[in-house]
Amino acid sequence: MNILFASQIEPPERWLPLLERALPEDRLFTNFREDVDVALVASPPPGTLAKLGRAKLIQSLWMGVEKLLADPSLPRGVPLSRLVDPGMVAAMSETVLAHALDWHRRLYRYREQQEEARWHRFRQYLASDHTIGILGLGELGADAARKLIGLGFKVAGWSRRPKALPGAESFSGEKGLGDMLRKTHVLVCLLPLTDKTQGIVNAKTISLMPKGGAVINVARGPHVVVPDLIAALDSGHLAHAYLDVFDTEPLPEASPLWRHPGVTITPHAAALTEPRTAVAAIAANVERVRRGEPPFNLVDFEAGY
Amino acid sequence: MNILFASQIEPPERWLPLLERALPEDRLFTNFREDVDVALVASPPPGTLAKLGRAKLIQSLWMGVEKLLADPSLPRGVPLSRLVDPGMVAAMSETVLAHALDWHRRLYRYREQQEEARWHRFRQYLASDHTIGILGLGELGADAARKLIGLGFKVAGWSRRPKALPGAESFSGEKGLGDMLRKTHVLVCLLPLTDKTQGIVNAKTISLMPKGGAVINVARGPHVVVPDLIAALDSGHLAHAYLDVFDTEPLPEASPLWRHPGVTITPHAAALTEPRTAVAAIAANVERVRRGEPPFNLVDFEAGY
Repeated sequence: MNILFASQIEPPERWLPLLERALPEDRLFTNFREDVDVALVASPPPGTLAKLGRAKLIQSLWMGVEKLLADPSLPRGVPLSRLVDPGMVAAMSETVLAHALDWHRRLYRYREQQEEARWHRFRQYLASDHTIGILGLGELGADAARKLIGLGFKVAGWSRRPKALPGAESFSGEKGLGDMLRKTHVLVCLLPLTDKTQGIVNAKTISLMPKGGAVINVARGPHVVVPDLIAALDSGHLAHAYLDVFDTEPLPEASPLWRHPGVTITPHAAALTEPRTAVAAIAANVERVRRGEPPFNLVDFEAGY
Repeated sequence: MNILFASQIEPPERWLPLLERALPEDRLFTNFREDVDVALVASPPPGTLAKLGRAKLIQSLWMGVEKLLADPSLPRGVPLSRLVDPGMVAAMSETVLAHALDWHRRLYRYREQQEEARWHRFRQYLASDHTIGILGLGELGADAARKLIGLGFKVAGWSRRPKALPGAESFSGEKGLGDMLRKTHVLVCLLPLTDKTQGIVNAKTISLMPKGGAVINVARGPHVVVPDLIAALDSGHLAHAYLDVFDTEPLPEASPLWRHPGVTITPHAAALTEPRTAVAAIAANVERVRRGEPPFNLVDFEAGY
């Protein structure tokens, strides 16, 4: 098959040798041709999507597909798959655990104290004293939940549709969201960005959380209403926020978030696609197309993810 | 039995109600009496130890017993038990994971960048690209190893006597130490402090580690030769150090460690004894004494832990 690799961001030199090894029968190229069977895309060059109407699969190299869906030139008749990369899923859980533990062990406060050479010990809590509430129970949320449960945290999860999560309490719907937030010390956003999830972390939802907790946003910037978050930090209702994603990226230098003492910022680096682990998932989908089977992880255009 | 609670540091009001509930037949008191059967001690008031020669058990409320052993008034004929508190063990693993992930995800570098409002993403590594080397494979080392393995890290462990560790590579002896260090990106010290382990993290041992790694010392200050550590940070051989323990505590304000950009300091707070989980272990040892059985976790006076 003819496989186009089209990305303005992902470096082809990290992908192509691995893809060639995984798909030795196929032809891989980076310049558009008319006879593309499968297009591997991540922020593709302008004009690329419009020409893919005859492809059998558009395979995103990323998990989030909201930018592809927002592009009017995306051919809606072609199956579109999100990438579920085990390396990226593991990376996301590492970041969620790092931040959850940073809050739980009060390391953000010890760093403040270090600046003043101050030796003062805070009260210690058991993991089972704290509930981590996860918004979104897809591959990312489920993996993070499993690992947090392994450390002894109470874990709650919320999803659009009811979903069971072994060892965790699961919630769904608007009432379920409030019920979860009222017991959530650390709120982790791992939702896809859709009309329904935009702004979900706002003054009202934050106010339902117990005082002194934290927000971890590793999904998309617009999930969080930033002025509401800053107000909650300034009032002391929230103790800390860990933000990896922003409405505008790179985060503008003038943003008050950079210098807010209650905010830890990372440059959209919580979890990156890892070619070494992703290529197997891509090759599996190419084989599905070759055999005429429906690809894995198809995007539901209606739901928006 | 008559049980003395003797500590200048542990607050009796957090312990006594739980101990009374766990040992309803026994008499608990905080002032010394001649007829003590079991003494629960953690930094006991001066003079207490000398009067315990007729006790059946001295039970430390802490895991580290090097200060008790260094006290010449400790009656050597009385069995001495370290405390193995599941809550404290879990807390230690939380701290080890938090620091290992902080280094692995480059969060310490992102914090530096945040100070300059700088948006720059570092290369991501898989957990399986990194080896965490653990010094000490007792209850603490084994629990941390298990949880690090669960996140996909390569784990190596070193102990005085050969010890198997499921899923990890284990080393022992002086040659084994060098072999482990040569593949260790993050060195975690969880050793008891003895003549043989003092100064184990020094210029020579650090130099064997690959460039760009980290040291996590959550055991005792004298395990690390501080000038050697600072030199390794200044030369760039080590990227970061996470220090919870120091030769002098509280760490003096004049210490260069406080303001070193490559050092994260916590005030001996990596893991505290947690009365809610420790009391069951203490009660189990009291029952052993009551039945005339040898207590759990007896200190080997020769080995020093």
